Order: sequence, then C-alpha cells, then structure tokens
Amino acid sequence: MDVADRYFNCTDSERAAFEAGIKLGTVYHQFVGAPISKYNVDVLEKSIAEGAKVQPFVKDAQVAIDRSRLREKSTEFDYLTLTGDMLDVKLSVKFKDVEVICEMKHIEEMGYPLMYVKEVKRN
Amino acid sequence: MDVADRYFNCTDSERAAFEAGIKLGTVYHQFVGAPISKYNVDVLEKSIAEGAKVQPFVKDAQVAIDRSRLREKSTEFDYLTLTGDMLDVKLSVKFKDVEVICEMKHIEEMGYPLMYVKEVKRN
Amino acid sequence: MDVADRYFNCTDSERAAFEAGIKLGTVYHQFVGAPISKYNVDVLEKSIAEGAKVQPFVKDAQVAIDRSRLREKSTEFDYLTLTGDMLDVKLSVKFKDVEVICEMKHIEEMGYPLMYVKEVKRN
Amino acid sequence: MDVADRYFNCTDSERAAFEAGIKLGTVYHQFVGAPISKYNVDVLEKSIAEGAKVQPFVKDAQVAIDRSRLREKSTEFDYLTLTGDMLDVKLSVKFKDVEVICEMKHIEEMGYPLMYVKEVKRN
Repeated sequence: MDVADRYFNCTDSERAAFEAGIKLGTVYHQFVGAPISKYNVDVLEKSIAEGAKVQPFVKDAQVAIDRSRLREKSTEFDYLTLTGDMLDVKLSVKFKDVEVICEMKHIEEMGYPLMYVKEVKRN
Repeated sequence: MDVADRYFNCTDSERAAFEAGIKLGTVYHQFVGAPISKYNVDVLEKSIAEGAKVQPFVKDAQVAIDRSRLREKSTEFDYLTLTGDMLDVKLSVKFKDVEVICEMKHIEEMGYPLMYVKEVKRN
Repeated sequence: MDVADRYFNCTDSERAAFEAGIKLGTVYHQFVGAPISKYNVDVLEKSIAEGAKVQPFVKDAQVAIDRSRLREKSTEFDYLTLTGDMLDVKLSVKFKDVEVICEMKHIEEMGYPLMYVKEVKRN
Repeated sequence: MDVADRYFNCTDSERAAFEAGIKLGTVYHQFVGAPISKYNVDVLEKSIAEGAKVQPFVKDAQVAIDRSRLREKSTEFDYLTLTGDMLDVKLSVKFKDVEVICEMKHIEEMGYPLMYVKEVKRN
C-alpha cells in the first residue's frame, strides 16, 4: 500500500474527483496574475498544461487562453495579467480504475470561472 | 436546479470531494510564497482560513502555520516566505447531504505536503 | 558591511526605489487571485499590509481594497477573487537615509493598476 | 508626456531601479509554488522569462532553474514545487537613458534568495 493511500478514507471515485479538484485549484491560483500578451500566450498555455501533467494522477491537460483581448505591444503597458475568465482548462485525472474528466471555463450566465466534473469513467 | 449543477455529471459525494480538492489547491497555490515572520503569522493564518470560508460549500476551515522556524526580526532579512511544509489545514466541505473532511499536512515519510480526504459523512 | 550590500552596485536612492518596487510586485503577484467577499475583506487587507511590513526596509504599509463590488453571500458563488483594480496600496520603504513613498492604484485613464514612486525623501 | 509619467516624482535612474524591483518581485511571487519536475523545467523557465519580457521596460530576461533536485518520475509524487532558492534570474530594465541590470539568486551565506542591482548604466 502506498504511503499516501493510508491517509485517505474514501472511495476510488471520490479520490479521483478530489485529485481533479486540487489540480484545477492549482491552475487558477498559481497562474492567475501572470503577465500576458500576444507575445507570450503560447508559452504560458504550454507551461500551465505541462505543470498540471507533472502533478499526481494527471493523465492529460489541455489549456486554452482567450486571445480576444490580447494586443500587439504599441506602448510599454500593452499587456494584461491572466484572469480566470480567460482560462479554458480540461484535465483527465486517473486514480486506479476511475478517470475523472474535469474542466474550468467561464460561464457567462454566472459571471464565474466554473470548475466542474464533466464525466466519471470506470474502466 | 442551480446553474452550476447543470455542468456536473457525478454523484454528490464525488462533487463534495471535488470541491474539497479545489479548496486545498487554492490554499497552497495562493498563499505559498507569502512573506511570514513571528509578527504576521497570526493574521496570515486567519486570512487563509477566512479566504477558504468564502469559497463555495466550505463550512469550516482551520489553518495552523508551523512557527518553529519563525524568528524575531534582528536584521532586515529575518523573515521567511510560506512553504507547504509549514501548513496544516483542515476543511469541512459540504455538498447537499455529503460532508467531506479534508486535510493538508506535511508527511515526513514522503517529504510532501499531502492533501487527503480524511472522512466522508453522509447525513 | 551587510552581506547583502556587497551585491549592490547603485546609489542609496536607487536601492530604496528598487526595494520599493519589489514590495509592490510582491503585493500584486502574491495576493491577486485570493478569494474575497464582504466577509473576509478586512482580514485580507490587514494580511497584505502586515505581510509587506515583514519584508526588508518597509516602514509602513497601507492597503485598501475597493468594496464596491463585494456582496453579501446569497448563493454559494457570491464572492470574487482579488484583482489589481481593487487594490490601493501605499508603502514607505527606507534604505539608509532615503525614504521612498510608493503607491499602487488603478488609473482609470490607463485601465491599469499603476505602481509608481510618489516621493523620494532624503533625511 | 506619458500618462504614467505624471504619477512619478523621482529621477530616471530611481525609476529604472523601481521598475526592476517590480519585475523581480513579480517573478518570485507569481511563480514560486508552481509544480516542477525534469519534465517541465524547460518550459517553466521559458515561461517565466517570456512573462517578464512583456512587462514594461524589460529589455531582456534570463531565467535558470536549479535542476539538481529534480528527478525522473518513479512515483506519482516525484515532483517539487518551485522555491526561491532554485531560481537564478537576470533582467535588463531600461527607462529612458538608464539601464538597470538586476539579479535574483540564492545567497548561501544568507540563506536567502537575494534580489539586487548589479549595475546601473547611463547610455
């Protein structure tokens, strides 16, 4: 038995969902505030996705940052800092036989970057 | 039906576990790096706990920061920045009839600030 | 001579200005993204200010968070995460005989949370 | 006159030093805590450097992360989160005719990730 497993007292699917939640919380609270412009948006997206993939149980990560408000640099101040409403994230997190597909995206109706469980697969 | 609920496709206990994971990920990645000394450790603890409590479904939050490495300020550089191994966090997260008790603490044997589900209660 | 001083190659007023810049960068990038509502805004303000004060050469710190968008919690999602435009920060940073008063505030005309040197005092 | 310039009340070299400080504070407090392993260290380094370059007055940025503690993934928990002592950052920040070269690196003797002004050049 894995050392970590000794601390858990829940089902495998609850564990998978818990691990998925950690990772979405990580993406938001680690990277919101990062400087962003047209120039570095590609590498920032990649960096967020690759950072998620090194965390426990993450099988896949896709990150898309909304480019509609990003501009060419015409003055020194032409850049933004990353906000939650610009982020679209999809993760696959697998614990034992359970895979959780979760997402974060801005829900217009709520005015809120919602993190949610899209699907729970038992293999 | 709540707008957010429409996006979820999982059981209530998986949802509660997912929400719990988000909040522990938030605590770690929002506050690790914050300047800390004997002088501000109390208010930082309180600020982390109160911040968790304003997030969805959090019923209670207890945060303890290890004070063993904190010092009185004798030079300008006598302070630290918060690291995961100094944090001991316990949260109660409730979705509908399911309450998840989760914790983050440094596990010596792993050399890792483990986030785990301590208990799932169905009321 | 202080160990740190050996690494610097600039005037005292440049050093004071440099130290001031570090602290405003810290405030923004450490705390933007933190969960905030009417319930925890006071403790978050205090926590940011006290965190600045433990950093080297900071003599005083005043932090005000704009409350106009904060609401009473009527649903689970009634909270925000801190953004730069909500922050009004004033710091006094003193290195040797030079005191720098710096501020961060949202400049409407720029649509930007500007960090600037308001005054350099030589005592 | 630039809108931002109206708010400043200091010399060009103090301004350049202030801007340099902001950027080093940003690097530390935005990215410390990010998940890191051998797998994503290259993209994280690049992401930090490119993020600095989109900020005002930054002419060049070099970021090196110490790889000595990074491991191949043999268990799910084989990764770290970025700490200040792993970071070696060098920035060139130019305001009008003044260029400030600043660095952040871990100073063994201090046990501290020192940010300092290495050189002020007047062109």
